[in-house]
Amino acid sequence: MKVLAVLYNGFQAAKEEPRLLGTVENELGLRQYLESQGHEYIVTSSKDGPDSDFHKHIVNTDILITTPFHPGYLTRTLFNEAKHLKLCITAGVGSDHIDLNAAVEKQVQVIEVSGSNVVSVAEHVIMSILLLVRNFVPAHEMIERGDWQVSEIARNAFDLEGKVVGTIGAGRIGYRVLQRLVPFECKELLYYDYAPLSPEREKEVGARRIEDLKEFASKCDLITINAPLHEGTRHLINKDLLQHFKKGAWLVNTARGAICNAEDVAAAVKSGQLNGYAGDVWNVQPAPKDHPWRYMKNPLGGGNGMVPHYSGSTLDAQLRYARGTRAILENFLTGKAQEPGNIIVGLGKYETKAYGQR
Amino acid sequence: MKVLAVLYNGFQAAKEEPRLLGTVENELGLRQYLESQGHEYIVTSSKDGPDSDFHKHIVNTDILITTPFHPGYLTRTLFNEAKHLKLCITAGVGSDHIDLNAAVEKQVQVIEVSGSNVVSVAEHVIMSILLLVRNFVPAHEMIERGDWQVSEIARNAFDLEGKVVGTIGAGRIGYRVLQRLVPFECKELLYYDYAPLSPEREKEVGARRIEDLKEFASKCDLITINAPLHEGTRHLINKDLLQHFKKGAWLVNTARGAICNAEDVAAAVKSGQLNGYAGDVWNVQPAPKDHPWRYMKNPLGGGNGMVPHYSGSTLDAQLRYARGTRAILENFLTGKAQEPGNIIVGLGKYETKAYGQR
Repeated sequence: MKVLAVLYNGFQAAKEEPRLLGTVENELGLRQYLESQGHEYIVTSSKDGPDSDFHKHIVNTDILITTPFHPGYLTRTLFNEAKHLKLCITAGVGSDHIDLNAAVEKQVQVIEVSGSNVVSVAEHVIMSILLLVRNFVPAHEMIERGDWQVSEIARNAFDLEGKVVGTIGAGRIGYRVLQRLVPFECKELLYYDYAPLSPEREKEVGARRIEDLKEFASKCDLITINAPLHEGTRHLINKDLLQHFKKGAWLVNTARGAICNAEDVAAAVKSGQLNGYAGDVWNVQPAPKDHPWRYMKNPLGGGNGMVPHYSGSTLDAQLRYARGTRAILENFLTGKAQEPGNIIVGLGKYETKAYGQR
Repeated sequence: MKVLAVLYNGFQAAKEEPRLLGTVENELGLRQYLESQGHEYIVTSSKDGPDSDFHKHIVNTDILITTPFHPGYLTRTLFNEAKHLKLCITAGVGSDHIDLNAAVEKQVQVIEVSGSNVVSVAEHVIMSILLLVRNFVPAHEMIERGDWQVSEIARNAFDLEGKVVGTIGAGRIGYRVLQRLVPFECKELLYYDYAPLSPEREKEVGARRIEDLKEFASKCDLITINAPLHEGTRHLINKDLLQHFKKGAWLVNTARGAICNAEDVAAAVKSGQLNGYAGDVWNVQPAPKDHPWRYMKNPLGGGNGMVPHYSGSTLDAQLRYARGTRAILENFLTGKAQEPGNIIVGLGKYETKAYGQR
């Protein structure tokens, strides 16, 4: 079998830190295993355009490994060329960079390492919530530049206690976010999801479902997005919906950048309609130097908590998704059943409703 | 009565934001109340040295109001001059800027607004923990300067899940920190405190007491300081104790800067013995421009989460401590009993063990 992995370059960092498993240099720790079994293993970061390694190798690849952090976009066009492809493994959570409808048609399985980084992302969400609400970034920058003016920070710093927090999506990550919010004594925890939680799970976190998205948006002081990207969620957060947000609400998005309209969000931060926006996902990755989310600020000079896409790629998470990728490979190569919770597309059919299939 | 308040300047921010109650401009919202009762009310930010308003007015002040954010240091020398002083109110939590032994001798009461900002500080602790462990600051700075290199961030980013977290002090703030840590599924929650929690309270947060400080330090991946400053805690964190920390541990201090030896902490961050240090309290406030905590970095260029002293001064907290200050004033002026939990020094005696009185 020919196995192709599209990973990001770790450069010097990856040479110095072997736990950076998800890099080109450290190859998810799979080379010895795959080659000892007689398989070919190609690892590259070159992923965009017809001359990329990804496009050149995909034509005779049997198993493709990608990550959400440096996504190799497997379009329908590429699927048509990938005559040998049998299995796509996402080392992480979120397979929107794969044309899933094409995968169904072509009988290519798509399998994720579902549990590998849901906690990592949920932690990043809580951090992002707190640093927006508490106005951390301008405060730290004030210290770094040698200043001290508490009133400039405190004027836009609040407590999370007593606020209304809502999650769009209460699945594997969204629910973990709700669990971590419980002790903060928010005024109310709300969720918007096509699938209601069971009464027991609602009660565990004290969350209430709002069925109408505009009503949901209008009730929340802070909204966190924890939903997959698909045609039903693309640009879900746009100029129209933002007008239904409370004036000065905060928005955290660690799900997928394209769930938000980038320009609309940047304009809302600039106007103060959003008091802040934080997250690690971008509509294009790596984000171009002139992406508006890099530099947007609210009228008081804060409200930007953006980072590169790494929340699900901590060293702890890399170990889990490297191990999970190996387990999926072993199952496939030895004919064992995959973990049901990991299967996005089985042989010719969706195995999840998470990507908009109702 | 003459009432003197030492507050920080809010400048333009305070004019634009009336909820910045703790500023010189907004005077804790007390002027109308005090003057309508026939009292004199002096508000100033000038606090240091013999020519400061604080030193000039203290000689005939009856009631002194201070905050921990811009502390008016009431030394024994000043106590000797303050012949009329009857009551010190701390608008916030932490009265270490008052010489409490002198207050006992001089029969001056010291009363805090105990509940006013303990939640605010506990939230800041959780934020600081997450942003150190998850390596937020270098990640955000990378975005701001137009770069994208995930491996440089991920190589020093971890999950809080599975780590050993310990608090020095499990009182009003430390216990709230423990409560908020529970859903993060840390490997273990530990605490070091002269007073053991009740078995019920230990069980609620699943925390275990370690009686020996060096043993405590050696077990923790991350330590958070939530203890008052007094002679027993001053420079508690020094070069010697830092050698008992795990290599690469993180330290969060939102209690008081002088609990740490500033140079020793900066050296430990620089060497990597500490992977990071975050907090909002400084041994001198405002911190001088050349304070080492402004610029210290770990060997990988991160690990600094410092901000000016504002965690307990969010707009939500300012409302609570302004109201609490007024309630303490009303009690005093009308001869009502004070809330027992607010009293640090009563008439001629300590009413708390929190400042080292065993």
